[in-house]
Amino acid sequence: MSSQARFKKDKEIIGEYETQVKEIRNQLVEQFKCLEQQSESRIQLLQDLQEFFRRKAEIQLEYSRSLEKLAERFSSKIRSSREHQQFKKDQHLLSSVNCWYLVLNQTRRESRDHAALNDIYMNNVIVRLSQISEDVIRLFKKSKDIGIQMHEELVKVTNELYTVMKTYHMYHTESQSAESKLKEAEKQEEKQFSKSGDLNVNLLRHEDRQQRRSSVRKIEKMKEKRQAKYYENKLKCTKARNDYLLNLAATNAVVAKYYIHDVSDMIDCCDLGYHASLARTLRTYLSAEYNLETSRHEGLDLIENAVDNLDPRSDKHKIMDMHNQVFCPPMRFEYLPHMGDEVCQVSAQQPVQTELLMRYHQLQSRLATLKIENEEVRKTLDATMQTLQDMLTVEDFDVSDAFQHSRSTESIKSVASENYMSKLNIAKRRANQQETEVFYFTKFKEYLNGSNLIIKLQAKHDLLKQTLGEGERAEYPPLYPPKPQKLRKPRPRSIYNHKLFNGNMETFIKVPGVVCEWTPPAGLEGRLARPTYNNGGLSRVGGALADPGSVMTSAVHGYKPDNLTTAAYGTNVQMRIISGRSDIKRNGICEGSSTFKREL
Amino acid sequence: MSSQARFKKDKEIIGEYETQVKEIRNQLVEQFKCLEQQSESRIQLLQDLQEFFRRKAEIQLEYSRSLEKLAERFSSKIRSSREHQQFKKDQHLLSSVNCWYLVLNQTRRESRDHAALNDIYMNNVIVRLSQISEDVIRLFKKSKDIGIQMHEELVKVTNELYTVMKTYHMYHTESQSAESKLKEAEKQEEKQFSKSGDLNVNLLRHEDRQQRRSSVRKIEKMKEKRQAKYYENKLKCTKARNDYLLNLAATNAVVAKYYIHDVSDMIDCCDLGYHASLARTLRTYLSAEYNLETSRHEGLDLIENAVDNLDPRSDKHKIMDMHNQVFCPPMRFEYLPHMGDEVCQVSAQQPVQTELLMRYHQLQSRLATLKIENEEVRKTLDATMQTLQDMLTVEDFDVSDAFQHSRSTESIKSVASENYMSKLNIAKRRANQQETEVFYFTKFKEYLNGSNLIIKLQAKHDLLKQTLGEGERAEYPPLYPPKPQKLRKPRPRSIYNHKLFNGNMETFIKVPGVVCEWTPPAGLEGRLARPTYNNGGLSRVGGALADPGSVMTSAVHGYKPDNLTTAAYGTNVQMRIISGRSDIKRNGICEGSSTFKREL
Repeated sequence: MSSQARFKKDKEIIGEYETQVKEIRNQLVEQFKCLEQQSESRIQLLQDLQEFFRRKAEIQLEYSRSLEKLAERFSSKIRSSREHQQFKKDQHLLSSVNCWYLVLNQTRRESRDHAALNDIYMNNVIVRLSQISEDVIRLFKKSKDIGIQMHEELVKVTNELYTVMKTYHMYHTESQSAESKLKEAEKQEEKQFSKSGDLNVNLLRHEDRQQRRSSVRKIEKMKEKRQAKYYENKLKCTKARNDYLLNLAATNAVVAKYYIHDVSDMIDCCDLGYHASLARTLRTYLSAEYNLETSRHEGLDLIENAVDNLDPRSDKHKIMDMHNQVFCPPMRFEYLPHMGDEVCQVSAQQPVQTELLMRYHQLQSRLATLKIENEEVRKTLDATMQTLQDMLTVEDFDVSDAFQHSRSTESIKSVASENYMSKLNIAKRRANQQETEVFYFTKFKEYLNGSNLIIKLQAKHDLLKQTLGEGERAEYPPLYPPKPQKLRKPRPRSIYNHKLFNGNMETFIKVPGVVCEWTPPAGLEGRLARPTYNNGGLSRVGGALADPGSVMTSAVHGYKPDNLTTAAYGTNVQMRIISGRSDIKRNGICEGSSTFKREL
Repeated sequence: MSSQARFKKDKEIIGEYETQVKEIRNQLVEQFKCLEQQSESRIQLLQDLQEFFRRKAEIQLEYSRSLEKLAERFSSKIRSSREHQQFKKDQHLLSSVNCWYLVLNQTRRESRDHAALNDIYMNNVIVRLSQISEDVIRLFKKSKDIGIQMHEELVKVTNELYTVMKTYHMYHTESQSAESKLKEAEKQEEKQFSKSGDLNVNLLRHEDRQQRRSSVRKIEKMKEKRQAKYYENKLKCTKARNDYLLNLAATNAVVAKYYIHDVSDMIDCCDLGYHASLARTLRTYLSAEYNLETSRHEGLDLIENAVDNLDPRSDKHKIMDMHNQVFCPPMRFEYLPHMGDEVCQVSAQQPVQTELLMRYHQLQSRLATLKIENEEVRKTLDATMQTLQDMLTVEDFDVSDAFQHSRSTESIKSVASENYMSKLNIAKRRANQQETEVFYFTKFKEYLNGSNLIIKLQAKHDLLKQTLGEGERAEYPPLYPPKPQKLRKPRPRSIYNHKLFNGNMETFIKVPGVVCEWTPPAGLEGRLARPTYNNGGLSRVGGALADPGSVMTSAVHGYKPDNLTTAAYGTNVQMRIISGRSDIKRNGICEGSSTFKREL
């Protein structure tokens, strides 16, 4: 449109108008296509998601079944095993076996959880996705309806504009034509005036003058008529123009509203709830996944707890408890006097005494040396054990590095290529460990020898000490009379005194036939101890073990008599004799030194 | 052993002793069996664990591959799709598609992580387990060595005890025999004395007295001899008994030591490092599992974040941006004057004015009514939309209940049986939703009709208002002259004034050929706007749009011209005219009221 073309003809104007309307119509068609394409993309996305979850559900189910089979393979084995029966009975699960059971439990748990995923995908997530698909299709149709209504409005206003525009054209044309006719009449009028100005009015004939007056009046009348027509058409034209301008304003307003608001509203209608429903669907998926994670984590924590509670000592005690007949200390070797021999203890009278004294001193010095030597061996042993423990408890189990790939597109770095687990390093470490082990066992044997020797010598030493100590105090008639005595009237009696117990030193007594009631240490309440002839378990008793009803304190050691839970070595418990037999009066013999107070 | 049998013969004693030793020997054998059984159990456990992890590794690999295939199936589809190319170019990922891509990423991530599990099980966990197996076997052998050494010590001491016991028996027997011989001699001596007591010594013959004296001396000598023997044997017996008692103490000490400490030590040797190594192995397994959990969780969080960012408005803008030619408002319909018509605006002169005034007032009251009605429809519409939104955003995605089975042995409760997702309830909810939807669309159409009508009438109303307002102020010669005038000399001119712009009211101008530079709003820096003939985008301009170089403020509305990021409707930007053409001088027409300031 150039400024020159100020005189636009109808055709031109209509042409421009129609071009503009056509452009709008094209856009409307394209808009519908765009909306349709968007809906199709969504349907495709939802379709893909459904297929995805369908397949993922299958994968979960396969995984779940594989895990279940795996767990069952070992669980059925366990259920039928002899050990398991025994364990169930005794409630004594070894800490290592407990870990294994929990690993199997975890496998079962994972199996169930992944089956739950399958269920949720199939019966929840996919259902939702297909519903959203239905929604998208339905809403597209409805939005298109709305769009059609909107487009119809546009068609209507543009049509109205076209109509009033044409009307305006028509009236303007008429107005222009009326204007030019008027101008023509005005021209004629002017001509008349100028003609009149040329003549001498006095010279004219009367008839001529009258003729001229009627022509003038005819022209005036025509002019008046044409003027009236002009004003009439002008009014029509003005009104038509006004209508055109008003409709123009209305049309532009509607078009603007459509493009600025309505199209957006139409798209909103199409969108209705899509994102919200998709969000809920994905949150369902996420909820399932997070729940699986929580459950899995719980299970792993249980295993971790069990690993923290791996306990060699406790397991050892359980094994020994289960086989307590095998590990229960036997009865002591008793002094069995020969053929009515009434002497029951070491005799320290002369001339034996000197010898014994010498022997005692020899033992003393030998023990001192041996103990020093053995202590050295022990120190080496402890240090070697420490080294071994350090090797065995090195914290080398963190495999986070293997999961760094998640943050990149690198392929998985196999742990086998990792330095730590490389074959060379493994071989080195194991060679080192075994070397240290060998050394340890060598030293242990050495220590064992030493401590066995010490124990024997110490027992003899202590017995001698006790004997010689009493010997010094007591007045014993010598074994050999210094010179023969005549006329010894009284019959020789046994000159050796019985002693019921040897003071209150710790004695190792296997007391046959003692029936005791004991007050257990804290935590072991409710158990009744009945150590009897065969089972023992009553190993250290302090104080006189004499009469029924008397109470004694006992340090109960390791092994369990019937019904008695193992108490820690050295625990003091109260015991009361319920009944006994005459051989209670048999003497105990001192066991030895307090080196045996070591914890089991 | 009853108290009656105080006289124990050799055989009986030896018998009792051998029984006791035999019991101990049996226990030792049983102890070794126990140790062996324990080792075998451990080997079996480790074997089971290795098989378990081997199979679990396979399962992980299968799972990993299935997930990878699944992800690839959809990823390859996406990579080749047209939309994807477009998106990559435009960096305009729809928020819904973004979620989908992240779900696929998560699948990939899980695939890699489970492959890492496979690797760790095969190349780390199983390796460790087999090493522990080797250790158990080796240590069992070594501990058994130690045990044998310990048992040899027991054999040694019990043998020694046996020896000294027999020696004691022998000497005691001799001692007893010497004692009885001495007693016999003493008896004889007594007999002699009693014989002598009967006779009167004075009466005896000298030979008889001498004879008697030699018999007495013979008996005395015998007695003395026997007494010496007795003392000699008694000493030997005492020494032997002492040895027996000392050895007894030593033996009991060694036996006690063995049962209380050594056996426990032997078991400890067998145990050496088993629990520690098992712990490290299980911690490796746990580390892998925890790491997988962490990685998985990271990925889920990314998805959750994307779900939180699902944004219908933003997605809509992206789509419209991508197709901005389609959604860009067209040029305004201009007033196209017909055939040189010089009038460009609504004429409010009389006699038209009265009519226009009446029309104006009619419009005013009609608009008032329509607006009230439409407002009611709008309220209903808003309320219905709220209801729909509530339905669509109900928080129904928590599936924790499906995972409760983990805590019990119940089989999985299918979500399909859950009340919420039951077919009946689903059908009900959807019927409800669609009903509300239908109502919404009905009301929307009603509202649309109403607001379209209002917009048209308002446009006409505002144009009239403006026209009449000026008409009141200006002096317009009437369209119709009140009476005819003679001799109007001057030629009729166009009596209609041009007006360049209509004041400074907001005008809706589509300005062809304006090239502008604009200062974008904050956040959209760096973009150059070149709204041109076809693309527009420059829709609201305040002030005169006249000469190149002049600066104007523009409220930029929705759609994007080339290179211009969509600014929010109503944002004010500075623009400067760079060049223009003469038709800049064309008048714009006021668009309408400020109802169009609504946000897109």
